[in-house]
Amino acid sequence: MAIPYPPHFTLSSPGTPIEPLPLTQDDLKKIAAYKAVDDFVESGMVVGLGTGSTAKHAVDRIGELLQQGILSNIVCIPTSTRTQEQALSLQIPLSDLDSHPVVDLTIDGADEVDPHLNLVKGRGGSLLREKLIECASRKFVVVVDESKLVKYIGGSGLAMPVEVVPFCWKFNARRLEEMFGYAGCRAQLRRKGCVCGNGGDDDAYVTDNGNYIVDLYLEREIGDLKAASEAMMRMSGVVENGMFLDMATAVIVAGSGGITVKDKV
Amino acid sequence: MAIPYPPHFTLSSPGTPIEPLPLTQDDLKKIAAYKAVDDFVESGMVVGLGTGSTAKHAVDRIGELLQQGILSNIVCIPTSTRTQEQALSLQIPLSDLDSHPVVDLTIDGADEVDPHLNLVKGRGGSLLREKLIECASRKFVVVVDESKLVKYIGGSGLAMPVEVVPFCWKFNARRLEEMFGYAGCRAQLRRKGCVCGNGGDDDAYVTDNGNYIVDLYLEREIGDLKAASEAMMRMSGVVENGMFLDMATAVIVAGSGGITVKDKV
Repeated sequence: MAIPYPPHFTLSSPGTPIEPLPLTQDDLKKIAAYKAVDDFVESGMVVGLGTGSTAKHAVDRIGELLQQGILSNIVCIPTSTRTQEQALSLQIPLSDLDSHPVVDLTIDGADEVDPHLNLVKGRGGSLLREKLIECASRKFVVVVDESKLVKYIGGSGLAMPVEVVPFCWKFNARRLEEMFGYAGCRAQLRRKGCVCGNGGDDDAYVTDNGNYIVDLYLEREIGDLKAASEAMMRMSGVVENGMFLDMATAVIVAGSGGITVKDKV
Repeated sequence: MAIPYPPHFTLSSPGTPIEPLPLTQDDLKKIAAYKAVDDFVESGMVVGLGTGSTAKHAVDRIGELLQQGILSNIVCIPTSTRTQEQALSLQIPLSDLDSHPVVDLTIDGADEVDPHLNLVKGRGGSLLREKLIECASRKFVVVVDESKLVKYIGGSGLAMPVEVVPFCWKFNARRLEEMFGYAGCRAQLRRKGCVCGNGGDDDAYVTDNGNYIVDLYLEREIGDLKAASEAMMRMSGVVENGMFLDMATAVIVAGSGGITVKDKV
């Protein structure tokens, strides 16, 4: 299937050279997402639907291909209430892991991708449902624009999210900060969008599961990622963390220079 | 301090032999709980308060000693909303781990105690808060009647609780059952007390953290407990499990033959 590039960079008819407009970051996200759907989704599949600004394009594309009759007999499992609403609005048939414990394919974005295809996810707040569904997926295809590639996990300087129960969240935030103190870790409760927050718990961002997110900011590499993840998971009150290790089967990267597909080796 | 034995087994005055009435299970729980408070709680301490029918007696005793002025300057951290209410009704000063990240001592009951002082806890539903506070405690004194002693974890044939997020709980219950299939594991959602339950999710028991409990019933030993616990904690959607391994510093057992104190070796 041809990828429907956004109009302003569709090539003009031969013989009419036109300077293409520069691609926006959202154009790149859309290109990667459409390629993932067009290359990987087949009729009859159980498909996990990711969450976030890139995954949103994949959901749109699946809805479009279902409406056109190019895809049929698909059942999708959304990774968030937000994605569920989007899918419902596109008449995409939905189910859950209770009914479909094995997922053929999940397509989702990521906040960071390291050279080994380890990921940081969950800046959109849906890390637990994403990890649950992506762990249950035979194939997990990640779609990103090139700005998400990092040398090491945490290397973007942006948040590495940890989902915690609200009970004693400050205690756990402090413990996480201490645990990764050697990497210059700073832990911060995620707030709702509002900048007028009073600094109390009232304006804490709440996940689909009723929990809080503690965002970790790392100055340096944290070393053994698997050990770091397991140490967090052993902590009482930590529900999930945003490191998705050794899970992606392919990463589709859209950049100004074109599309690259990185496969798990 | 003398332990105030329930009236019906207080020894009568010398020279007047009276056949003592048999001790009830609740008498034994009370004896163990009172001994823990009397032997371990000191003025000025930060004390964690357990949850359940045995821990309740310890909370009563602390309230009593505070009112009598025998203890003073105590701050307590409750492990459940239920215990919090009991403590408030007794005017026991309360705090939390955010303000007091180090707890001097926690006294709590247990559902099972194995020969190595590993525990099963959480049949009362408060496993997460209990584990969080007990992990933060310098001393963790467990109080039980002798019926709680088992040869191995799961050996009572009663529930080993696992706290899970409500999202896709059936999927996770199935995964837990498979994980411990070799031990004849059966997983069952905990319901509210009501026997008229419709079998749907509506009557699921909900923890203080808004989660569900999946109770595991084991026919045989599960082997390496630490590995089993960590395997559960790695599962997305599992928030906590009821195995409290290598945490108890002392276990006070009250039996018809007297009180035994087992110290961690």
